[in-house]
Amino acid sequence: MTTALNAPATQAPEPALIERFTRIVGEQHALTDPDAQLPYLREWRDQYIGKTPVVLRPGSAPEVAAILKLAHDTRTPVVPQSGNTGLVGGQIPHESGHEVVLSTQRLNKVRAVDPSRTSMVCEAGVTLEEAHAAARAHGRMFALSLPSKGSCRIGGNLATNAGGVNVLAYGNARQQVLGLEVALADGRLWDGLRALKKDNTGYDLKDLFIGSEGTLGIITAAVLKLLPQPAERATAVVALASPAQALDLFMRAQDQAGADLTAFELMARLCIELAVAHVPGCRDPLAVPYPWYTLIEISSLREDGRAQATLESVLGAALDDGVILDAAIAQSERQAMELWRPREGVSEAQKPAGGNIKHDVSVPIAQIPAFITAADAAVKRVCPDARPIALGHFGDGNVHYNVIQPPGMERAAFLARWDEIAYEVHGVVTRMGGSISAEHGIGRLKRRQLAQVKAPVELEMMRAIKRTFDPNGILNPGKLL
Amino acid sequence: MTTALNAPATQAPEPALIERFTRIVGEQHALTDPDAQLPYLREWRDQYIGKTPVVLRPGSAPEVAAILKLAHDTRTPVVPQSGNTGLVGGQIPHESGHEVVLSTQRLNKVRAVDPSRTSMVCEAGVTLEEAHAAARAHGRMFALSLPSKGSCRIGGNLATNAGGVNVLAYGNARQQVLGLEVALADGRLWDGLRALKKDNTGYDLKDLFIGSEGTLGIITAAVLKLLPQPAERATAVVALASPAQALDLFMRAQDQAGADLTAFELMARLCIELAVAHVPGCRDPLAVPYPWYTLIEISSLREDGRAQATLESVLGAALDDGVILDAAIAQSERQAMELWRPREGVSEAQKPAGGNIKHDVSVPIAQIPAFITAADAAVKRVCPDARPIALGHFGDGNVHYNVIQPPGMERAAFLARWDEIAYEVHGVVTRMGGSISAEHGIGRLKRRQLAQVKAPVELEMMRAIKRTFDPNGILNPGKLL
Repeated sequence: MTTALNAPATQAPEPALIERFTRIVGEQHALTDPDAQLPYLREWRDQYIGKTPVVLRPGSAPEVAAILKLAHDTRTPVVPQSGNTGLVGGQIPHESGHEVVLSTQRLNKVRAVDPSRTSMVCEAGVTLEEAHAAARAHGRMFALSLPSKGSCRIGGNLATNAGGVNVLAYGNARQQVLGLEVALADGRLWDGLRALKKDNTGYDLKDLFIGSEGTLGIITAAVLKLLPQPAERATAVVALASPAQALDLFMRAQDQAGADLTAFELMARLCIELAVAHVPGCRDPLAVPYPWYTLIEISSLREDGRAQATLESVLGAALDDGVILDAAIAQSERQAMELWRPREGVSEAQKPAGGNIKHDVSVPIAQIPAFITAADAAVKRVCPDARPIALGHFGDGNVHYNVIQPPGMERAAFLARWDEIAYEVHGVVTRMGGSISAEHGIGRLKRRQLAQVKAPVELEMMRAIKRTFDPNGILNPGKLL
Repeated sequence: MTTALNAPATQAPEPALIERFTRIVGEQHALTDPDAQLPYLREWRDQYIGKTPVVLRPGSAPEVAAILKLAHDTRTPVVPQSGNTGLVGGQIPHESGHEVVLSTQRLNKVRAVDPSRTSMVCEAGVTLEEAHAAARAHGRMFALSLPSKGSCRIGGNLATNAGGVNVLAYGNARQQVLGLEVALADGRLWDGLRALKKDNTGYDLKDLFIGSEGTLGIITAAVLKLLPQPAERATAVVALASPAQALDLFMRAQDQAGADLTAFELMARLCIELAVAHVPGCRDPLAVPYPWYTLIEISSLREDGRAQATLESVLGAALDDGVILDAAIAQSERQAMELWRPREGVSEAQKPAGGNIKHDVSVPIAQIPAFITAADAAVKRVCPDARPIALGHFGDGNVHYNVIQPPGMERAAFLARWDEIAYEVHGVVTRMGGSISAEHGIGRLKRRQLAQVKAPVELEMMRAIKRTFDPNGILNPGKLL
């Protein structure tokens, strides 16, 4: 009765069917010209380049629903796309050219800001930066923040449950949402745009769609939480002997600052070296080198010096107790930006060092030190001269554990070993009760790996939900599951 | 192929089958004696008194799973029960006596506290108070708090997504959970006990079970978040002319205190009058009466007078701007407790006033003033001399909108009008985009009402999920859906 679960389609849609899809959105919003299609087919790092008969750009939630109804009835696979900034290929159609792309970019309105300034309704195609601006215009903050905020869009942020730099204090994308509007696989439109903090009237459907990577429905709008904006921030870079000391420092900082602890980032020495070597304006933050660093930020809603006082108190005690080796506290906004520069520039700075095998993993916070030790050892066994570089959102248990190629090796030869090295690293993660995708999702990149690490009962539940919500398997086939 | 979705069973299990269930838990943990069964059959306010052939008290998660496997194979309906403190009858078996009760009370271990002190693993039968104690022993707080904390248990707290007095700053039960262990309807056991803040590897199964009222699976254990414990609290009672002023004050308090705003409760004058009349030790908190009151609490992790300073600053400015009429700030812990007493005693204090029709609803915060006006008018139309009494967690949009009988009326005659009055109040709620059950759930009490107010597409999704997770309809039939 159904096609194989989530397998790519085996034949291209007929021209007459493309014509029916086109009529839903209007000719000018159905892109068939290869040049016009290209921005929707190319993953921004060129990891995937897909093919499609047509890119549909609906202008309203009912148009999205109408496209899905037709796709459902004709068993046409649909790839939903938002800002096309995803890192796991979830937003790119298969190379077969049999899948229709549905871009939500024209759903670009901030529909309303609640009079209480505690929430706003944004459509899926609003960019994250536009959402920030709308919140700011009402004296508030939308807490989700990503480096790609200028191009990524709310629909994709929610479909992938994006993480980013503000998770420690405010949570993932999931925590920023009160309600959703979703076009279902069979073309029904669900209006779940409730602006309620408390609503115990049945199953939590909202959280099922968030993070489902467009495989259960297409999010067309969301009620987003707005929060008060911090008035002051205190920032420090701290030198440490080991990740174990970072854990000690994190617990002290959390005890004293609680929800005001807005960043706690870990960097290996190599991060600083690469940033200083390759990022303009980056300086070594302390007079002598140290093995490990954390960047700490404490915020406060009131401009009363409290953030700085708390930071000084935490670091002073940690220095006295021998937990940290050195620290520099920013004395101005400009100095704070300088302290952040190596952390922000390190992704860029890894490129000149050659091929780079990346892992976006998480483990329970207390396990981070043991994880780094075990992963380093595993990598050394497989590729002795490769250089592991650990950094990440320590306070979230999220380590971006990257492996840089040995200096003499061919880049391609190193990258050919991606699966082998990832298998080792993910093995360590799994044994520690961790996750092989902390914030980027599964998409196409990690689909096979997911099947290796997830318990069968969990995969079975996920597949059963997929069949229930998308019985014809039209939504983003070959992704996630 | 399947029995009717969620309908009560039409025949009692045979003695031979009861014997098979009994063998799973051992004879001493299978209660058939009426006196021994009574505590599991009687809802604590005597709203429901059920019947069962046997109360099963499994001692481990595998035993829970084994019971469900047998129930699934034999299509025997099972009613999961935790602390038996629920307010909507979800935990009580049907009067037919055809349903087996499964109590999770013997799953009572705190399995582990994470070395980072950011989480702990509790079994479903741990009482909320025991969970608090375990957190406190590690210098931390488990943020969920309910008046029934001595008897309610973690499994039920999560199955109903309990709210309570700490939601404003810390969120509902859902927000306190990192991972779950769940016995599924067909007897498989899902180990989802992950202690991860970030995990983007597929559908959010955890949040599907939380709040599902035991209709999709039975939670056997959970990874619960631990937070730093506030070191100081500042408390005030504030007099207001209207709920609209409460909204203004709430926005000011949130702007200045953010996550440190730990309570913002609303009370109509009648709350104070009833509490003063009927609760020992309750005094009128201010020299003269005012139409409306809020209780505000601001907390701080450090003992530095900051909470008090913020509260004084918010109230001082609000008084200057004419937003509030009067205020009393507690100068000691004892005074703070006195200010809280009317709020805590008001449920009790309503009883001597006669029959009381209760609504646990939520609306978007900015709509609370309009909701109260419209609900008052609707109640007056239906029952002119009834006395509405609004109180609740203002900052969560959650109003406990109760209606006290007219002084001369027969109590039973008034209570007979429950559905009629609830229909009016829920109508106002629904028109304002609100929820007819903010924190108590649906259970048996609001099941018919749910079908009236939910959009068909949402009910259909919920029913499809129910069929997927419990195809034989054995889990808590006649509840929720």
